[in-house]
Amino acid sequence: MFNLKHLTGLKNLTRADIEYILNVARNLESVFAGQKVSRILENRVLATLFYEPSTRTRLSFESAMIRLGGSVISVADAQRTSSAWKGETLPDTIRTVENYADIIALRHFEVGAAETAAQYSRVPILNAGDGSNEHPTQTLLDMLTILKERGTLDGLNIVMVGDLKHTRSTNSLALGLSNFDVAFTFVNPPGFSTSQWILDILKERGIPYTQTENLSEAVHDADVVYVCRIQKERLESPEDYHKIAGSYALNRSILENASKVVTVMHHLPRVGELAEDVDSYPGAAYFRQPYNGMVVRGALLTIFLNRVPEEYK
Amino acid sequence: MFNLKHLTGLKNLTRADIEYILNVARNLESVFAGQKVSRILENRVLATLFYEPSTRTRLSFESAMIRLGGSVISVADAQRTSSAWKGETLPDTIRTVENYADIIALRHFEVGAAETAAQYSRVPILNAGDGSNEHPTQTLLDMLTILKERGTLDGLNIVMVGDLKHTRSTNSLALGLSNFDVAFTFVNPPGFSTSQWILDILKERGIPYTQTENLSEAVHDADVVYVCRIQKERLESPEDYHKIAGSYALNRSILENASKVVTVMHHLPRVGELAEDVDSYPGAAYFRQPYNGMVVRGALLTIFLNRVPEEYK
Amino acid sequence: MFNLKHLTGLKNLTRADIEYILNVARNLESVFAGQKVSRILENRVLATLFYEPSTRTRLSFESAMIRLGGSVISVADAQRTSSAWKGETLPDTIRTVENYADIIALRHFEVGAAETAAQYSRVPILNAGDGSNEHPTQTLLDMLTILKERGTLDGLNIVMVGDLKHTRSTNSLALGLSNFDVAFTFVNPPGFSTSQWILDILKERGIPYTQTENLSEAVHDADVVYVCRIQKERLESPEDYHKIAGSYALNRSILENASKVVTVMHHLPRVGELAEDVDSYPGAAYFRQPYNGMVVRGALLTIFLNRVPEEYK
Repeated sequence: MFNLKHLTGLKNLTRADIEYILNVARNLESVFAGQKVSRILENRVLATLFYEPSTRTRLSFESAMIRLGGSVISVADAQRTSSAWKGETLPDTIRTVENYADIIALRHFEVGAAETAAQYSRVPILNAGDGSNEHPTQTLLDMLTILKERGTLDGLNIVMVGDLKHTRSTNSLALGLSNFDVAFTFVNPPGFSTSQWILDILKERGIPYTQTENLSEAVHDADVVYVCRIQKERLESPEDYHKIAGSYALNRSILENASKVVTVMHHLPRVGELAEDVDSYPGAAYFRQPYNGMVVRGALLTIFLNRVPEEYK
Repeated sequence: MFNLKHLTGLKNLTRADIEYILNVARNLESVFAGQKVSRILENRVLATLFYEPSTRTRLSFESAMIRLGGSVISVADAQRTSSAWKGETLPDTIRTVENYADIIALRHFEVGAAETAAQYSRVPILNAGDGSNEHPTQTLLDMLTILKERGTLDGLNIVMVGDLKHTRSTNSLALGLSNFDVAFTFVNPPGFSTSQWILDILKERGIPYTQTENLSEAVHDADVVYVCRIQKERLESPEDYHKIAGSYALNRSILENASKVVTVMHHLPRVGELAEDVDSYPGAAYFRQPYNGMVVRGALLTIFLNRVPEEYK
Repeated sequence: MFNLKHLTGLKNLTRADIEYILNVARNLESVFAGQKVSRILENRVLATLFYEPSTRTRLSFESAMIRLGGSVISVADAQRTSSAWKGETLPDTIRTVENYADIIALRHFEVGAAETAAQYSRVPILNAGDGSNEHPTQTLLDMLTILKERGTLDGLNIVMVGDLKHTRSTNSLALGLSNFDVAFTFVNPPGFSTSQWILDILKERGIPYTQTENLSEAVHDADVVYVCRIQKERLESPEDYHKIAGSYALNRSILENASKVVTVMHHLPRVGELAEDVDSYPGAAYFRQPYNGMVVRGALLTIFLNRVPEEYK
C-alpha cells in the first residue's frame, strides 16, 4: 500500500498515505510522551545533512531518532563548514553519505535537491526543505496538529493570514488539506495572495475558498487560524511595514470575534504578527507544533526505515 | 530537601545543597573512572543550547550525559548558525526546545538569560554560563576539586591571584566557599580587585580575607592557589602587560615559598600566567579540573532529572 | 605483537601491522553490512576533534563508532568555533579532552600535530590528517579497497595519475604499498612528480616504478588506477589548466585500453579529472571507498580501544 522509498514532497502523497503517516504518529505518541519505552529504531543511523542551518527541524529529527532508540550523525551547516565538499556535486556527496547512514534527512537551498538526491541514494531521503519548493515534514506536523486539536481533518474552516505568496508552509498545507473536506479563507495584503496554481488545484478538487483583507471577519467562523510572517524586504515601500503588518497580525482581541475556540497555529519563529497575549488563549497550538513535529518525524523515520510494528499499520 | 527545579546560579544554593551535589558527584565517580557501568540516565535527552561556543563546557556536559547512559542533541553555536532563530525571543526558543529534550544546558551571552529561560521552561535549565553573571557548574567543579585534593572544604587558606575584578570563576568560587569555614588572600594588580559586593558578603558571613600584591608571601600559608588570567585589553597601558602580568604569574620557584604542597588550580585555558614548570608539581590540579567538571555535571544531570538512586542520597 | 598506543602515521606500521588491521576490518564487515549486530565498543566514547572541517572523514569515524555500539562527542571545527581554545596549546587541549573521551580522532592543520598530541595524551590518538604530513586512515582504507577489489595486495600494477607532488593520499599509499610486492607507474604533468624521498624508499625496498606522461599506455597493464586532482592554483600558468588537466583525466574511452577490468579509485571529492561515464564501469571502486573508510576506522577504534575479540586476531 504505502510504497514510497523517499519523501521528497507532499505532492507525491495520497490521502491514504497521509492518513497512514498520521496514524503511525499517533501510535508512537506514548513513546514521545514518556509513557512507554521503544527501541524500534535501534541499530539504525540517521544522517542529518543540512546545507543551510535549520535548528528547529534538525533538532526535532534528531530527538525523534534518539527517542526511538536510533543514533545520529550530523552536518549542521554543510554549505559553510564542509570545505571538503566544495565543488562536489550533490549526487557524489549522497553516494558518500549513504555509506554512513541508513536514512538521510536533507535540507538544501536548491529547488529539486531532494528529488536529485533520491535518484542517486540507496537509502531513503527525507526532504527537510529544498529551497522554495517543498517542506513536507512541516506540512505533516501541521496536519497532525490540526487532527489532534480538532479531532478530524474534515469539515473544517481554515483561515490563513499573512504573506501567502511566499510562505512555503501555508502553500504546502493548503495542498495537503485539499485531500480532505475543508474550506479556506485567505487573508492577505494586496500583492501577497496565494499563487494561482494552488488556487487552480483547489478548484479542481472542489475545495471552496474565499480571499479577503478583513481578518476579524474571517476569524468569526474559523476552526483554525494559521498565522505567517510578512517580511519587510518583500514590501514595495518597506516604510509601510508597520501599518500593513499590523492589519494582518493576530491578537487576543481579534480572537474575541470567533464564535468558538479557534486553533491558532504558526510555523515559528514569530516576530510581531502573533501577539504574546495569545499565548494563554486556550486554542493557542503553536507551542504544541514543535512537539508534533518531533512525533511526525519519528513516524516518518519508522516508516521509511521499514520498522513499523504490525499493530500500528 | 533539595527541591530546586533549575540551576540558574550559585546564589540559590545553600551549604546543604552544595554538599548534596558534591556527595552525589563522589558517588558517581566509579562510573566515570570506568570501574562501574551505569545507565542511570537511559532514555533521557540533554539539549546543549550554546549561544556562544564553549567547547570545554559543552563537551563535558555531553560526555557526562553519555557516560550515564543518556543521549544528546546539540546546538554548538546558536547565535551564529541558527538563522531560524534570528529575531526569536529566548522564551519562544525555550518553548520549542523543551519539546525535544528532558533537560537543557544553556550558555548565553546575556546576564540573566538562565533565569528567563527557567521562567518559561517545563524542563530543567542548567546555567552553563550567562554573560558576566554566573557559571555555577564551574564553581561546583572547582569545589569538588578542592574537596578531593584537600579532603575538606573547611579550614582552608585560599589564595586567588590575577584579575579578580573580571573573572567570573573566582568571584563565584568565593561566593560558594563563603558557605564554608575558609580564609581568602586576594592577590591582584591595582585596579583589579575583587568587587566590593563580594567583599561585603564575605564580611557579612564572617569570612576573613586580606588583599595584597605579593604573591610569594601569599603562597606561604596557602592550601589552594587559584590562578586566573589578566587580559591585556583590560589594562590602561597595554604596553605594561608583560611587567604586570609577570608579577601575578605562578611558577615553580614561587611555589617553593609554600610551607606545604599547595593545590594549584586554573579555570583554563591558561596563557602565560601559569608556567609549564608547574605541570609536574605534585599539587598541580588544573588538568584534573576538567575531569571533575564532567563528574559534577553528571551529578547535576542526575539530580535535576530526578534519577538519583536512594543509596546516593 | 601489535603494540602501538597511537596511530600517528603509516610510517610506524609494519607489513604485519597493516595485515592485522585489514584482517580485523574484514572480520567486522558483517556488522557494517547489517548482517550482524555488535556492541563491541559499548560504553566507550570517541571525541572527534577537528581543527579543520573534513566531513567525510569525521562522519565515517562517527558512524563506525556508533555502529559498533560506542558514542561520540564532536568538535567539527575547533579552530573557528572554539573561542575558548584560542591561544591554548594543543598539549593543554589534549590534556582536557582526554578526560571526556576514551579515544581521540584528531584532524589538525599543522604537520606533526598528531605526534605532539600523542606525547601528552593518556588515551589513544588516531591521526585523521595533520597538514601535509600523514593521513593514515585514508591509506588504510585505500589498501582495504584494493585488497577487496583485487583479492590481494601482492603482484599488482598500480597506476597513479594527477598531481603526485602535492597529493598526500597517493604519497602515503605508495609508502603503504611498498611493504608489499607491487610495481608503480606514476603519470603526471611535468613538475608534479612524486617526491624524491618517496622514490628513494621505493628503490631501497626494491619496488619497481616508472614515470610517464602517457595515461592511455599506463592503463594497459594496470590492476589499479588511482586518480587525483590537479589544482589550478598550483600551475605556473593557470590558463593552461584545461589543457593540462585534460591529459591527466580518466574517462571510459581511456579505460578501453586496459587489458583487464581495472580498479578505479579516487580519494574524493572529484572535480573534472574523473569523468562521470566511469561511474557505471565495473571496476569503478571510488564510491565503495567511503564504505571501506568506515569499516577500517571501525577496526582502528576497536584495536586501539583494545576491544578486538580473540577470534578476530
